[in-house]
Amino acid sequence: MTAMTAMTSEQLALARHLAIQLRVDSIRCSTQAGSGHPTSSLSAGDLMAVLLVGHLRYDWAAPEGPNNDHLIFSKGHASPLLYSMYRAVGVVNEKELVYSYRQFNSRLEGHPTPRLPWVDVATGSLGQGLPDAVGISLAGKYLDKLDFHTWVLCGDSETAEGSVWEALDKASFYKLGNLTAIVDVNRLGQNGPTELQWEMDRYARRVEAFGARAIVIDGHDLNAIDGALTQARSNPDQPTVVLARTIKGKGAPEIEDKNGWHGKALPPDLADRAISGLGGVTHLRIATALPEAGTSAITPSPDAPVTVPTWDVGEKVATRAAFGAALSALAARPTVVVLDGEVGNSTHAGEFRDVCPERYFEMFIAEQQLMASAVGLAVRGYIPFAASFAAFLIARPYDFIRMAGVSEVSIRLVGTHAGVEIGQDGPSQMALEDIAAMRAIHSSVVLYPCDAPSTASLVRTMADTDGIVYLRATRGAYPVIYPSDEQFPIGGCKVHRAAPNDDVTLIGAGVTVHECLAAAEELAKEDVAARVIDLYSIKPLDRDTLVDACRATGGRLITVEDHYPEGGLGGAVVEALADADLPALHVRILAVNGLPASGEPAELLNAAGISARHIVEAARNLVGVSAP
Amino acid sequence: MTAMTAMTSEQLALARHLAIQLRVDSIRCSTQAGSGHPTSSLSAGDLMAVLLVGHLRYDWAAPEGPNNDHLIFSKGHASPLLYSMYRAVGVVNEKELVYSYRQFNSRLEGHPTPRLPWVDVATGSLGQGLPDAVGISLAGKYLDKLDFHTWVLCGDSETAEGSVWEALDKASFYKLGNLTAIVDVNRLGQNGPTELQWEMDRYARRVEAFGARAIVIDGHDLNAIDGALTQARSNPDQPTVVLARTIKGKGAPEIEDKNGWHGKALPPDLADRAISGLGGVTHLRIATALPEAGTSAITPSPDAPVTVPTWDVGEKVATRAAFGAALSALAARPTVVVLDGEVGNSTHAGEFRDVCPERYFEMFIAEQQLMASAVGLAVRGYIPFAASFAAFLIARPYDFIRMAGVSEVSIRLVGTHAGVEIGQDGPSQMALEDIAAMRAIHSSVVLYPCDAPSTASLVRTMADTDGIVYLRATRGAYPVIYPSDEQFPIGGCKVHRAAPNDDVTLIGAGVTVHECLAAAEELAKEDVAARVIDLYSIKPLDRDTLVDACRATGGRLITVEDHYPEGGLGGAVVEALADADLPALHVRILAVNGLPASGEPAELLNAAGISARHIVEAARNLVGVSAP
Repeated sequence: MTAMTAMTSEQLALARHLAIQLRVDSIRCSTQAGSGHPTSSLSAGDLMAVLLVGHLRYDWAAPEGPNNDHLIFSKGHASPLLYSMYRAVGVVNEKELVYSYRQFNSRLEGHPTPRLPWVDVATGSLGQGLPDAVGISLAGKYLDKLDFHTWVLCGDSETAEGSVWEALDKASFYKLGNLTAIVDVNRLGQNGPTELQWEMDRYARRVEAFGARAIVIDGHDLNAIDGALTQARSNPDQPTVVLARTIKGKGAPEIEDKNGWHGKALPPDLADRAISGLGGVTHLRIATALPEAGTSAITPSPDAPVTVPTWDVGEKVATRAAFGAALSALAARPTVVVLDGEVGNSTHAGEFRDVCPERYFEMFIAEQQLMASAVGLAVRGYIPFAASFAAFLIARPYDFIRMAGVSEVSIRLVGTHAGVEIGQDGPSQMALEDIAAMRAIHSSVVLYPCDAPSTASLVRTMADTDGIVYLRATRGAYPVIYPSDEQFPIGGCKVHRAAPNDDVTLIGAGVTVHECLAAAEELAKEDVAARVIDLYSIKPLDRDTLVDACRATGGRLITVEDHYPEGGLGGAVVEALADADLPALHVRILAVNGLPASGEPAELLNAAGISARHIVEAARNLVGVSAP
Repeated sequence: MTAMTAMTSEQLALARHLAIQLRVDSIRCSTQAGSGHPTSSLSAGDLMAVLLVGHLRYDWAAPEGPNNDHLIFSKGHASPLLYSMYRAVGVVNEKELVYSYRQFNSRLEGHPTPRLPWVDVATGSLGQGLPDAVGISLAGKYLDKLDFHTWVLCGDSETAEGSVWEALDKASFYKLGNLTAIVDVNRLGQNGPTELQWEMDRYARRVEAFGARAIVIDGHDLNAIDGALTQARSNPDQPTVVLARTIKGKGAPEIEDKNGWHGKALPPDLADRAISGLGGVTHLRIATALPEAGTSAITPSPDAPVTVPTWDVGEKVATRAAFGAALSALAARPTVVVLDGEVGNSTHAGEFRDVCPERYFEMFIAEQQLMASAVGLAVRGYIPFAASFAAFLIARPYDFIRMAGVSEVSIRLVGTHAGVEIGQDGPSQMALEDIAAMRAIHSSVVLYPCDAPSTASLVRTMADTDGIVYLRATRGAYPVIYPSDEQFPIGGCKVHRAAPNDDVTLIGAGVTVHECLAAAEELAKEDVAARVIDLYSIKPLDRDTLVDACRATGGRLITVEDHYPEGGLGGAVVEALADADLPALHVRILAVNGLPASGEPAELLNAAGISARHIVEAARNLVGVSAP
């Protein structure tokens, strides 16, 4: 390691004072709140003081500035420290810091969220800040082509999360020299010592084995910190991990390096003694360096013409193929970026690479990082589409999706090969709980089109739709039923075969729309008139049309879904109608009953109880039972 | 590396023949099925032939034998190879292998499931077999104290999953010398080359950095394989990872090491040429070594007396505290094992450690491995309880829970700190989608008790309940409302304040039961008679009692939950009533609307729209609107 450093002795002296102030303020706000994580803040005080005084390039007056550095607290519980830094740079005042922390309606929440303009992503679920930062750094290096740096403060406990290693792996694969993780190795977790405690060599070996540069330092030696951060920024093609040996509770001697103080505010008397020992309250104001001027190499072009392909009614096309075609067309929009989980040939996301390799990132079989990359790209203003098999896309990174909801970022997810319809690969590959899981995510939109034109239209619409937008696609090819100029607004549905005196309404989405249409045809032969609703937008859904259908068909509804019975399409329909105060409601929810196995798609739809035959039978019974 | 080997030259010759047969059979069954992953099977043929002939100790006639080795295909897509091994040992015949593979109703599914008695866990979602094996090996070393060995065949692509590194980390932390991962480094993923391709040194550095022994070999050199597996078994306190450089498609020269052949059956002509080149169909029958006799050091004692503590009505107790107390009492059952995600002091699971440290395993902040360890322990017949904060326990390892459902194992999950009720820590720590997510899991049970005695009773019952059994617990302390001898069957509920002429039914679970009771009290002052249902068992639920309540209160129901509005308690209730053909149904679902923030629990319940005040208002309106 060279002795390269960046800071003057005046700056180091300032950082030394700042570190004390950050500690004092971290104690003050958490003690006032009566909760929080002061000891986890104290350990990192020196690290963040040096970063702020000597390395972070940030225009606090313009947090949206394109070339600002990014600072993410992956250890979000150290929020007292983060907010104390905000006070030091003058964007949060003393009163707000000390008296609003963790209070109702305060923006200084227990763990940081983007309610604060300087916070990129919500953290607090460990092992997510660093993966998110990989997405930000990908954008900086490959898309924006700006020289901002992404700094991430990590805890040592969170290195037990596999997602941290997915992140370092991708950071080194993509040569993200613009990314630095600073690991606050304070030896103690919530419940006792961490696995590796202060075995810095073992941390370093892991980091190096995953392709990053490891720099081990004493995290309370300001010169060493300065040296490490200086080197970190001058490493163009390799991410850096600064492994800082620190003392939990540093600066509050009575509890330094003591177990049992995680996540506990210091009682007032202890806080007073610690603050006095540190020299009392101070009011330093730090002017951080401003970033170089710079604008992203990519300019959004929301009106760029996007021409999606068209199909003939009756043609058999898989919706995943229509997704790939529409996605390729979206390459005309310069901010659309595609992320693949090493299945781009199956999902058809790979077609985007053929037309636009520079905005296609292979994340390999690492769905947590796949999702986190999408989040990071969204932070930088891109329109990310992440695609994989639905089962893996939703279930594997579900906590990342949950946290993306808390961050209120906008990401687009396309899960293919959903449901028993996939056939021979068997239940491990069948998403059967994804609709329930995704509906329950804050700010989510859930779409499930049944044919190529509706898929292509919705994929194009997704690009301009805020939230956590999920589209479920089918493996097999099914007939096109809509003309290519049909409109498919989010929150809409399509009604087929409606007549004033219909006996029953059949509601499907995706593959089951075709089963419903076949069933309606069959029922017509028995003089049972069934209207069919293609509920391609499951969240939000078109409640008015459902209510109308209920009224028209005596409240007789049959919902059919290639999904487990709980919380899916049927659940969405009955939840929507629950408060409609309808004169009658007779619903039958047909869904996948029991654990499916391998087989042909038709065999499996049938075995699951969701094929046309079952719909016909259910409709027949329902009309019989509840006929007036 | 020493030259230590185990196999005789006769055995090696047999393995050589077997490897050919496994390849031929892998091609035959997949070509016959027209789908599957033959090339991923061919690469590992030599590895598995040597394992079967010289190293695996398994009594195929008695798969439940306590000292059998375990063999897990973490790369579950190599099922043709696994099933060809089953043919070679005589438990699957040629006809079943060749003609039933991937067919409807066949037990030879596209990816292995425990429908086959020799399969421990379902695989096919990559990066899960090795974590599951850690649980099995923990049981072998620390509980059973048997000398069986766990062998895991991993793919190279799946090493991109962070869960693989969580597994190796815990395997080395717990010194699992009884665990060997064999990584089939065939260089090609589904979509192209893997990240590390054949950079065996880089794999080895990662493995060693995570504390395991790495042995790099040519995966087609039978002597080298024998040497590696011999060493692997003789390493008492360190897991081994055999890194085998192999060729994808090995044995089918036309497609060896060629991209574009992942997951594709060989067309019949190509298959014929490959089979001829290999020497044609053979009928070797292998007799594997039998395990030493042995029985587990732990004998189940299902009738051991379990004395849970009691509480007085009115006493304020957190349900998480009651969970900890009941769990400690369950230590009397020798097969109950507890797994902690480094939050045992918060969840109260840590109380089990105080009474029974030898059956308490700390998994640190690695929830995927936490869940996989539970699965592995369940495979060995234990009754695992895994506990963490509900948000992390359910969302982070959701794909592992999904796959546990596919495996149909029985595990017990306790998630504490659910909902906005947790207060100041903010939304990152609030499970608000866990009920929806868990209800949609195959074989799941979802419980959410409101006081200490009901929690303790349900925790005791969980130990004897099959499936993926989830109990949601609350952070704060609330009054005990049930006597300690009250019974709480799974699928039951408790009705409070019921009278024949009630106006409305209020349905809550957990914290909202208390809000419903307070609301009913308030409503009584306005002469609105409200009955309250404590729906502590959300799945399965007591539909009959709900139907009765509907009929008694004119179909007027208000559901209240500390959860997002989709797929939770309200969803469960309306789904259950959808097909009851009730004369009237007027439901109001009160749930957490919008993204919560930090604050006091009461402030947040109120802001979310689920406190007593909101229930009163909704009831007042509902009775007004829909009074006869």
